[in-house]
Amino acid sequence: MATETAMLSLDNPVFVTYLLAASIMLLKLMLQPWMTVVRMMTVRAGFRSPEDARKSPLNPTPSSGQLEPNEHVERSRRMNLNDLESIPGFLMAGFLFVLTEPPLILAQVLIWGYVIARGAHFIAYLTAQLHDVRATCWTFSSLPVLVMAVYILLAGLSA
Amino acid sequence: MATETAMLSLDNPVFVTYLLAASIMLLKLMLQPWMTVVRMMTVRAGFRSPEDARKSPLNPTPSSGQLEPNEHVERSRRMNLNDLESIPGFLMAGFLFVLTEPPLILAQVLIWGYVIARGAHFIAYLTAQLHDVRATCWTFSSLPVLVMAVYILLAGLSA
Amino acid sequence: MATETAMLSLDNPVFVTYLLAASIMLLKLMLQPWMTVVRMMTVRAGFRSPEDARKSPLNPTPSSGQLEPNEHVERSRRMNLNDLESIPGFLMAGFLFVLTEPPLILAQVLIWGYVIARGAHFIAYLTAQLHDVRATCWTFSSLPVLVMAVYILLAGLSA
Repeated sequence: MATETAMLSLDNPVFVTYLLAASIMLLKLMLQPWMTVVRMMTVRAGFRSPEDARKSPLNPTPSSGQLEPNEHVERSRRMNLNDLESIPGFLMAGFLFVLTEPPLILAQVLIWGYVIARGAHFIAYLTAQLHDVRATCWTFSSLPVLVMAVYILLAGLSA
Repeated sequence: MATETAMLSLDNPVFVTYLLAASIMLLKLMLQPWMTVVRMMTVRAGFRSPEDARKSPLNPTPSSGQLEPNEHVERSRRMNLNDLESIPGFLMAGFLFVLTEPPLILAQVLIWGYVIARGAHFIAYLTAQLHDVRATCWTFSSLPVLVMAVYILLAGLSA
Repeated sequence: MATETAMLSLDNPVFVTYLLAASIMLLKLMLQPWMTVVRMMTVRAGFRSPEDARKSPLNPTPSSGQLEPNEHVERSRRMNLNDLESIPGFLMAGFLFVLTEPPLILAQVLIWGYVIARGAHFIAYLTAQLHDVRATCWTFSSLPVLVMAVYILLAGLSA
């Protein structure tokens, strides 16, 4: 068994695979709220807090209804919530998976499979594809994390 | 002080304790959305995106009202949101806690206490027990994470 | 290049910086739901599950309307959701950032910058400051995580 020193090193291709995917998914996680911000500023609606409807430099002409749900904004919020249900779980599962020293090819399939599925899910959600398309992408993003979690569980049980 | 190599090894019983609990909680985190999916498919309601009410193989007979909140589905969504408020925090706190080299018995009590409390909370929420029952389970799941966070803080301060 | 043993040790000032900030943010993450609980108990309203409006020791005098949104409670829930969109991402990005061995001064600026910005955001949200104030705090909390994610990505690409 390799030492953990080797496991979390940039010399370990499994860790590098994870590191690249994790950084991409962290960017996705942190940039989705920016899409919500941009959409709110564009439509000047879909705010959530009472104080957001007050006159300010960013909201120079307040109007009634700015606090009501706006589908253009809500879509980005739903995408964000979907990220929250998936990405932190992937980030932790993937990291612990690296520590169980999986075969490189398995790590590559699961980790890049996740990233590709989430990318496809993002596009499907953004462009309001038929539910079945989005659901298929979501399923392919859920399965790799479940497989990694089971793999970690079995590694822990065999310790 | 042991090396970190030993800390994140399957030879370290504190890490194995964490790894087992983390994999179980990762499965819980990732499977709750599947309960939401199953419930949506069963009642054919509680959808959130406008496109989900369109005719498709998974929704062959669209009907008005499919986009309105459905309590059977919403309960699973609330359970999911509750997971999001708790499990990622536990996963990170538990991992950093392992790195502070706590006594095994303390780690076992806090980590398994958390898992048991979340399991009880899941059952209480699923079966719509009286609020006080659910709140008690939730409290016992919150305290171990808070204790671990304080433990990490003190370890960092004493460095 | 230092070994990972050194990286995750309390002898590594970058790791200690992260550990202190992470424990503070974990406490923030886990304590926000307690604010929601306290507010629900104070106004005896803003409950979300049907069973929460039933008579119980914690709800001795149920009244209609207890299940309707209550702004005092909803504000704490929005603050919690905002935490969920930010803190788990910070915790993972920060940890992986430590593993890339950044300069101490950069780590201190990004990590403490995040903590300070989140603290200011908390106060701005709690006291219902003008949207522009809260948005500014939020922006300064988002940027450090994005910078760390890009740093991790570049480290992975250069491996």
